[in-house]
Amino acid sequence: MNQVAVEILGYVAACCSTFAMLPQALHIHRTGEVEQLSLRAFSMASAGAVLWLAYGLLIGNMVVILANVVAVFIVGYIFLQKLRSVIKKRG
Amino acid sequence: MNQVAVEILGYVAACCSTFAMLPQALHIHRTGEVEQLSLRAFSMASAGAVLWLAYGLLIGNMVVILANVVAVFIVGYIFLQKLRSVIKKRG
Repeated sequence: MNQVAVEILGYVAACCSTFAMLPQALHIHRTGEVEQLSLRAFSMASAGAVLWLAYGLLIGNMVVILANVVAVFIVGYIFLQKLRSVIKKRG
Repeated sequence: MNQVAVEILGYVAACCSTFAMLPQALHIHRTGEVEQLSLRAFSMASAGAVLWLAYGLLIGNMVVILANVVAVFIVGYIFLQKLRSVIKKRG
């Protein structure tokens, strides 16, 4: 496999990972359903995206930065909706 | 920030991303609840992990390989449980 093909594979992989949770976020936006989602899972995913973003900024890698700005918004949205629901139930 | 601290930040970020969906997988294992999960989201996450794994093998990067072997199992499990539920409902 040549170098260009390998790089393209990497970019496709990055796109899949970055946008993976977009359908889940849209589902929550439409239905408000978050009961079956794990707060721990989405808090870890959000922390991961924030840390990757910080890492990208520190090493100055634009691909890592862009991918994780998008990811922070998507998984951050899911996390906040779930957190709001948990707080509401407890309150 | 020194080089070592930046590298550690990268590894912590990678750990968060790799293991993020483990609590969701355990939740599904305990309860069987998958109705509110998006099939599209977890099919994309699984495809992403498989493609990252292929990319890691092609460039020979052990960190990328290990992280994505774990991710393939975790998100793949969630994806298959959701897929099974969708097929069951349709059948």
